[in-house]
Amino acid sequence: MRLVVRKYGGTSVGTPERIRTVARRVAAAHRSGEQLVIVVSAMGDSTDDLVALAGQVSGSEASRRHPREWDMLLSAGERIAMALVAMAIRDQGVEALSFTGSQAAIVTDGAHTAARILEVRAERVREELRRGRVVIVAGFQGVSPEREVTTLGRGGSDTTAVALAAALRATACEIYTDVDGIYTADPRRVPDARRIREISHTELVELATAGAQVMHSRAVEIGARYGVDIRVLSSLVDAPEGTLITRTPQGMEELALSGIASSRGQARLVVRDLPPGLATSTELLSRLASAAISVDTITEALEANGRSQLQLTVAQDALGQARGIAEQLAGQLGGGRVETLGGLARIALVGSGMTGRPGVYAQTFRILLEAGVSLHAVSTSSMSITVWVPEQSETVALEALHRAFGLAE
Amino acid sequence: MRLVVRKYGGTSVGTPERIRTVARRVAAAHRSGEQLVIVVSAMGDSTDDLVALAGQVSGSEASRRHPREWDMLLSAGERIAMALVAMAIRDQGVEALSFTGSQAAIVTDGAHTAARILEVRAERVREELRRGRVVIVAGFQGVSPEREVTTLGRGGSDTTAVALAAALRATACEIYTDVDGIYTADPRRVPDARRIREISHTELVELATAGAQVMHSRAVEIGARYGVDIRVLSSLVDAPEGTLITRTPQGMEELALSGIASSRGQARLVVRDLPPGLATSTELLSRLASAAISVDTITEALEANGRSQLQLTVAQDALGQARGIAEQLAGQLGGGRVETLGGLARIALVGSGMTGRPGVYAQTFRILLEAGVSLHAVSTSSMSITVWVPEQSETVALEALHRAFGLAE
Repeated sequence: MRLVVRKYGGTSVGTPERIRTVARRVAAAHRSGEQLVIVVSAMGDSTDDLVALAGQVSGSEASRRHPREWDMLLSAGERIAMALVAMAIRDQGVEALSFTGSQAAIVTDGAHTAARILEVRAERVREELRRGRVVIVAGFQGVSPEREVTTLGRGGSDTTAVALAAALRATACEIYTDVDGIYTADPRRVPDARRIREISHTELVELATAGAQVMHSRAVEIGARYGVDIRVLSSLVDAPEGTLITRTPQGMEELALSGIASSRGQARLVVRDLPPGLATSTELLSRLASAAISVDTITEALEANGRSQLQLTVAQDALGQARGIAEQLAGQLGGGRVETLGGLARIALVGSGMTGRPGVYAQTFRILLEAGVSLHAVSTSSMSITVWVPEQSETVALEALHRAFGLAE
Repeated sequence: MRLVVRKYGGTSVGTPERIRTVARRVAAAHRSGEQLVIVVSAMGDSTDDLVALAGQVSGSEASRRHPREWDMLLSAGERIAMALVAMAIRDQGVEALSFTGSQAAIVTDGAHTAARILEVRAERVREELRRGRVVIVAGFQGVSPEREVTTLGRGGSDTTAVALAAALRATACEIYTDVDGIYTADPRRVPDARRIREISHTELVELATAGAQVMHSRAVEIGARYGVDIRVLSSLVDAPEGTLITRTPQGMEELALSGIASSRGQARLVVRDLPPGLATSTELLSRLASAAISVDTITEALEANGRSQLQLTVAQDALGQARGIAEQLAGQLGGGRVETLGGLARIALVGSGMTGRPGVYAQTFRILLEAGVSLHAVSTSSMSITVWVPEQSETVALEALHRAFGLAE
């Protein structure tokens, strides 16, 4: 018997009418013989409403200062949605019941507001499935070994769905959302972007990390680790096809570019005239890490005078702090000049089979050159080529790369 | 050390500003050396909003058709309020944490939407109090022995507070509300109504049953059973005095009238020309009970022809159904004529020391006669005299009784 975990996001359950639509589809799938676990997010903007309420009561630092109570508060949103979804499914004549993260035994560590799943003890869910019931589970929330309510942070409901699918050894994990799949680029920026039919977990992680917003990389990583095939598809149409995320992508060895993603608000920092050697870059990275600043790339170059130059990319909103840290270090080491450049966009071209194909690298540079886009940093992995360009060139660069690499076809 | 259970109703925590006001008062009481358990209701109209949402998803019968999911849904409201209250108290520099009904071990039976408390295992609450923390507990909700979330139905949050006070052997149980205590009559109807300083549990149960809306009789009954003194007072003013509900009212033997309460929407039903004897009234009461119709009073009178006449009072909205049942029975027994009279108000005069004082009875009738109020039924108990009058005479009767019995003084 097929056992399917379906996740419906906030938009999909955003109104009573949409909840009834979801219920009709779930009931139809149940009648066709599927065992179903339904993971739901909070309705529409209701989580934002709770966040706003906490802000009015306790200020903008509420989540940091009261993490336990924050989780208690936010977990109410999924509780409301799951009870309503269960009612609507029962109204379709199908037995259904809802479980909180605690009742479904989504056991997490105790890191409130950003808990990690330790294990899913799905016996109670499995028991209800055996009785022929549809089980609705609150996304985004779990319970710590000390029986405290926790929330999973960003991408939480997707993570719940994939973790449940892994624990239940589900046939499939379906993520219903308000778009009809994952695209080769953001369709709002690249008009001829097209839906990807199939992509590997690792490629999607690269796309998500690079800024694609359909699915959080965290859930996909669990899918990769436990071999859970994930289908991302629209809750707004009948019989959607969507995008399949799977461990065995088609086309074993060929270059298969899957898509382009981008994110703005990036910046570059160059520190010149430093003592050369690993000690300098290590010290700089350590100090940045202590200040919780993430560095995307770091490259070292020797200058003509034998001194070293470090080039880093960071998020724009960390640039001022990073600059201060770099200047302090440069001063301590003698000399050192710091230059910064903000207002950059980071564009990642993601695909498998890039390794050992330097042609792709060269082709990327040529495409950007011909499109008149200046390039301020670059980084590569086995799965991606990432370039930093001025924000005002972002759309031109996206379109040029998308077209030239044949993603629109 | 004083251990106090405080309950704040929906109005008292209805806005972020009010939540902060509650937090300031709780923090001040904590600093003065009290151990505090705070029971909260859902904010303002938020429970009504959830009920409306369920109606939109599943229709007006949602609570009856999906009782388990209904409880899951409604329990979210208190969860939101308690987390926000905990944050606000912590913002005052006082350690605090919130517990759901389940975490606080409010164990109920499994009767969803109207569960009864079986026991309160308050160890976890007591442990946190010992650590010097303020404990916030969600009102209105509990957990069944099967670990299902339940709600307590009407008067639920008051019931949670009094049950916790009983289990913790609290020094005091304080019910904060938007009025400043319990009044001798509804101040909107009787302008010279005054606040009662002290009243016994049993008198208050009479008043609540008769229509006074400050506190639900269910919570007061638990207070009576476990000897919990309850103070009802305003959350909107500083240093409120309120009304103390206690087992040892002042003035041992004297007639002490505490107040008058009334409710509209009452009706009278008279069945004439029946076979006399207990069998007839028993049969009528059984049939009404099978139809879930509550009968307030029933009196039998022998008519001149030796036949019997039964007179009953019921709620107006059950009158049509009650009439049908009475007519069917009368037909089966031969003869029987049914007369009904709706549009009545039931007024109860409550106090201790009425037993053995027939003067009170006579005085009540005389007051109503002089006020020109017609009387359609009457019933008495050791604690009260209840009269049924036309709804349009309700205010005149209330004022006349209130004044004549000296309640305004």
